[in-house]
Amino acid sequence: MNITLTSGKKVPSQEGKSILESLKKEGIFLTSSCGGKGTCGKCKVIVKSGTAESGSQMKLSQKEIDEGYALACKTVPSEDIVIDIPKESMLVVEGRIATEKSKDLLGLLKLSGADVDPPASRIVLQLPPPSLDDNISDLERLKRELLAHGLGCLRIHYRFLTGLAHTVRENNWEITLSTIESDDCHEITNIFPGNVTAPHYGIAIDIGTTTVVVYLINLTDGSLVDVASIYNSQIQFGDDVITRIVNATEHDQLKSINRAVISDINNLFLLLLETHELTTDSIDSFVISGNTTMMQLFLNLDPASIREEPYIPTANFFPLSYAGELGIKANPNTPIYVFPCVASYVGGDIVSGILATGMHRQDDVCMFIDIGTNGEIVVGNSEWMISAACSAGPCFEGSGIKHGMRATDGAIEDVRINPETMDVEIQVIGEGVKPMGICGSGMIDAIADMFLTGILDPKGKMQKESSDRVRDGEEGPEFVIHYGEENDIVLSEPDIENIIRAKAAIYAGFATLLSEVGFSFDDVQKIYIAGGFGKFLDIEKAIILGMLPELAREKFEYMGNTSVIGAYLCTLSKKLQGEAEEISRQMTYLELSVSSSFMDEYMSGLFIPHTNIDAFPGVKSLMSKS
Amino acid sequence: MNITLTSGKKVPSQEGKSILESLKKEGIFLTSSCGGKGTCGKCKVIVKSGTAESGSQMKLSQKEIDEGYALACKTVPSEDIVIDIPKESMLVVEGRIATEKSKDLLGLLKLSGADVDPPASRIVLQLPPPSLDDNISDLERLKRELLAHGLGCLRIHYRFLTGLAHTVRENNWEITLSTIESDDCHEITNIFPGNVTAPHYGIAIDIGTTTVVVYLINLTDGSLVDVASIYNSQIQFGDDVITRIVNATEHDQLKSINRAVISDINNLFLLLLETHELTTDSIDSFVISGNTTMMQLFLNLDPASIREEPYIPTANFFPLSYAGELGIKANPNTPIYVFPCVASYVGGDIVSGILATGMHRQDDVCMFIDIGTNGEIVVGNSEWMISAACSAGPCFEGSGIKHGMRATDGAIEDVRINPETMDVEIQVIGEGVKPMGICGSGMIDAIADMFLTGILDPKGKMQKESSDRVRDGEEGPEFVIHYGEENDIVLSEPDIENIIRAKAAIYAGFATLLSEVGFSFDDVQKIYIAGGFGKFLDIEKAIILGMLPELAREKFEYMGNTSVIGAYLCTLSKKLQGEAEEISRQMTYLELSVSSSFMDEYMSGLFIPHTNIDAFPGVKSLMSKS
Repeated sequence: MNITLTSGKKVPSQEGKSILESLKKEGIFLTSSCGGKGTCGKCKVIVKSGTAESGSQMKLSQKEIDEGYALACKTVPSEDIVIDIPKESMLVVEGRIATEKSKDLLGLLKLSGADVDPPASRIVLQLPPPSLDDNISDLERLKRELLAHGLGCLRIHYRFLTGLAHTVRENNWEITLSTIESDDCHEITNIFPGNVTAPHYGIAIDIGTTTVVVYLINLTDGSLVDVASIYNSQIQFGDDVITRIVNATEHDQLKSINRAVISDINNLFLLLLETHELTTDSIDSFVISGNTTMMQLFLNLDPASIREEPYIPTANFFPLSYAGELGIKANPNTPIYVFPCVASYVGGDIVSGILATGMHRQDDVCMFIDIGTNGEIVVGNSEWMISAACSAGPCFEGSGIKHGMRATDGAIEDVRINPETMDVEIQVIGEGVKPMGICGSGMIDAIADMFLTGILDPKGKMQKESSDRVRDGEEGPEFVIHYGEENDIVLSEPDIENIIRAKAAIYAGFATLLSEVGFSFDDVQKIYIAGGFGKFLDIEKAIILGMLPELAREKFEYMGNTSVIGAYLCTLSKKLQGEAEEISRQMTYLELSVSSSFMDEYMSGLFIPHTNIDAFPGVKSLMSKS
Repeated sequence: MNITLTSGKKVPSQEGKSILESLKKEGIFLTSSCGGKGTCGKCKVIVKSGTAESGSQMKLSQKEIDEGYALACKTVPSEDIVIDIPKESMLVVEGRIATEKSKDLLGLLKLSGADVDPPASRIVLQLPPPSLDDNISDLERLKRELLAHGLGCLRIHYRFLTGLAHTVRENNWEITLSTIESDDCHEITNIFPGNVTAPHYGIAIDIGTTTVVVYLINLTDGSLVDVASIYNSQIQFGDDVITRIVNATEHDQLKSINRAVISDINNLFLLLLETHELTTDSIDSFVISGNTTMMQLFLNLDPASIREEPYIPTANFFPLSYAGELGIKANPNTPIYVFPCVASYVGGDIVSGILATGMHRQDDVCMFIDIGTNGEIVVGNSEWMISAACSAGPCFEGSGIKHGMRATDGAIEDVRINPETMDVEIQVIGEGVKPMGICGSGMIDAIADMFLTGILDPKGKMQKESSDRVRDGEEGPEFVIHYGEENDIVLSEPDIENIIRAKAAIYAGFATLLSEVGFSFDDVQKIYIAGGFGKFLDIEKAIILGMLPELAREKFEYMGNTSVIGAYLCTLSKKLQGEAEEISRQMTYLELSVSSSFMDEYMSGLFIPHTNIDAFPGVKSLMSKS
């Protein structure tokens, strides 16, 4: 049985499996932020011919059903079928997740005072062939040569030995070794016949609760070769970390949850290798960043006690692990470095983020916030650091928002509402791409302008008479951001409620953490903002929304996905990897969930911009103008 | 389909599998020195009822066939059958291989200046439960406590983490850790809830080319709990190391050869655990000794270049490996220490043997010989050591000898021929056990007395008129050692040729090595003899045979299987493990196969006792008397 695409490509249809799964098996990934549960409605395909059983059409309009639309995750072909995949359903694999690829990452590395000096390196040795007078074993011969190269402290695993005899003899005793440096010791991880030093590559990964981002990095020159990303398919076990922990613990699904993200990672990095015509032999290291729960789940560690007071993970510092023991489809002995974490709710992604900002080298008091599925905040400088987590929810990554999507091609990333004409001007990611949804930065823009133009009141309710773009939708009032040829893109009242809750948690987190250490917003000289927004996060609009405090514009710096940037830096620099370890040891953690002042601040934040409007004098004056 | 034993026990018959295999699957092991090829004829069973297909009856007499005898390895049941297993076919699993169990091994440990201080130890920790104020991760909590116990240098593998969260909480934060010390660092290998320190156990193994011996050792008090042994089932891939290397290399059977010995080890140690009602949780370490090829094959390393000049193994020093990665059915993280080797033909069994003798602590020039499938010789003292290997063949372990067997219950271990009456007096291993075959010490006794009584001439030919026990057998003249009720036990002329070749190689090795370092037999103060002989190796008889040089009786010490004794010592003492490493580094190796003086000496040794009878004045005078 086959699934034929309108492009002509034929994909074998797996017996009893959904179109989504059969396509995935062949490396064709559809957008599926619910992980194939049929609830996000994003994996639409059009069945052109042949019959298929559709399990659910919940997320399809009557018009779509009439036109042959089906959810790929809930549709199982019963014979050969032909389908068309609309552009908006295709997951953009290569490409521009936020702005990392266009950023000068190598410049950032130099700015951090580091050189391209990766922990994973390669060494070429020409061994003297053995003779009756020099008859030491292959391993001792290799060690003797490494000692002569100044590598005194060596670590060699048993599994390294299995191919040794054959490999040293294959190319006349010339060999290339892959090594990884840790704790001032060199561990030999791979061996190849001949000289195969350049170029070799590393993989840096950010495992977000919602999105997995993979960098392919040239370890020889430090360049970022390519980027790929995918929704974390753990989403089928819950949108947030807590639901996933419950599923892992109470429904015995730890192994399945672990497998889901391992499979995502395999899909992405193997696709990158294929795209660039590389083999797994060229990969010498993996560096993994992510929050504490993501790290436990990646390592298949029971996360149960992260959820229960006093909130304890199995580990915050992880020993080096290896591809083979984790199911990563690289050479089995390829080393995997997992970023150290700070506490159950401040993870390796935050340590990585701080490393990317360089805040740990600054004398001034700085602030860092990473707005992802959770929202984590750090205050401090080169001397001290304190961190906390506020539950912001994944809405800025598109989850729980009707037309929400990540900041990839087709996302509306910039929205302006003309206060005179009430016309809406949008900007879409990708050249000549039709808008398919709205990403975090677009949502913030839209709500700020809807508030300033009176479409929204401070409680986030829509004023029906304010614009003819406000209409009654399936889930209550909605505002049309874009009139499409087939489908409109809207923000609904429930969408806006979600976003207001998220922004309130973020602002409350900022305020509580600062007051805990006896500082105020005025003491903060720099605010680094991280998160999976688009190229632009309009700081002014975020202040109008009340997500960010009203401070001088030049104090803010929007950095994009700092978690993967930090992973990039650690992939390329031993020095910076050392700094990451130091950051995680130095940082303290404050538990906001037991803080009553955090709850008070949160309640005050459920208005646009804030109950205490005097903290936002600029917004107040804008409001009086409009 | 079942195989019913006359004891009443029922064993499921595996479809298409031989009786040997079906019995093995149920933990019933038959003697099978050819490894199931149908050539050794030792796995005889009697089919009492039911039909079975017999593939080969080559090794059975017509009388046996008439009585229902069949070879278990070549007989496949075609319906339910009832069989009787004669006692001589049963492999003695528990028990007395040579004399180790009755020996005072603990006394030897003390004599070596060591205490019971095993590298594998257990530590009980009562961790303080976490709180909001003390919320470090489980791993950091455990490390903090270990640091307080003085364990500074720690090594923890990723795989140790997977059960950690659950285990620390199972018994109120009381845990027991198994650790292994290597390179002055403690590696944590296992974790158990509560206090499960005593007793814990180690497994010491000698992988001989012919025989695998397993010790179960109490790590708490140092006692040897039990011994089990089995023919190395790699024998099906060749009797000697060279044939096995050829099979591994040219017939691509490395993996199968590796699996064979791993399966032997699993069978033996699991049976020992079962016998003593222990679980794998009580096993904290494996220590493996054996010759260099056995070590490469145990570790699944390509042995090809061991066979080709300049004779190079993959490794002589091995990193710690783990049960899981080798297929050993203990807890996957249980550490496996493999004895360091010296060269391709002087292995860990010799290093282990030297450790057992204590020769490396002596000032006098000593000699050591291990007579196994090969014959390895060491000369030296605390200052220097030189070693060599002579090809002695496996006849003393029963291989290639018609009624040869290992020194287990039923073996004739002592033979005396009355020069007056020509009556033969024998001693059999085991109380009230009928003789089933003859072991190495019995062969040496028999041939020495056969020579002195004129039954054999110096060339090893039988004198037909000398005794009525000399008769014509299937393979030429044979001498009846024992008239049995059903079968006689004999030594045939081909048997004797085999034994003479072996003893000639041993004596030639001794002589060549000594002359290489400028010494003679007179300089040697002590000769340690190791090998799988019975309780008694009659030194005088070995001298008459010309296997050992004629020196004062008190200079000889017969030690039994020193390879497994050394493994016992290393299982129990960090200090002695250090000495073993030192021995292997200190020892040099001489390649006899390229020595012409060795070949000359060998040719001179193909007589009883030797072409140069003047080197054996005592034997000469005995000969003139008889």
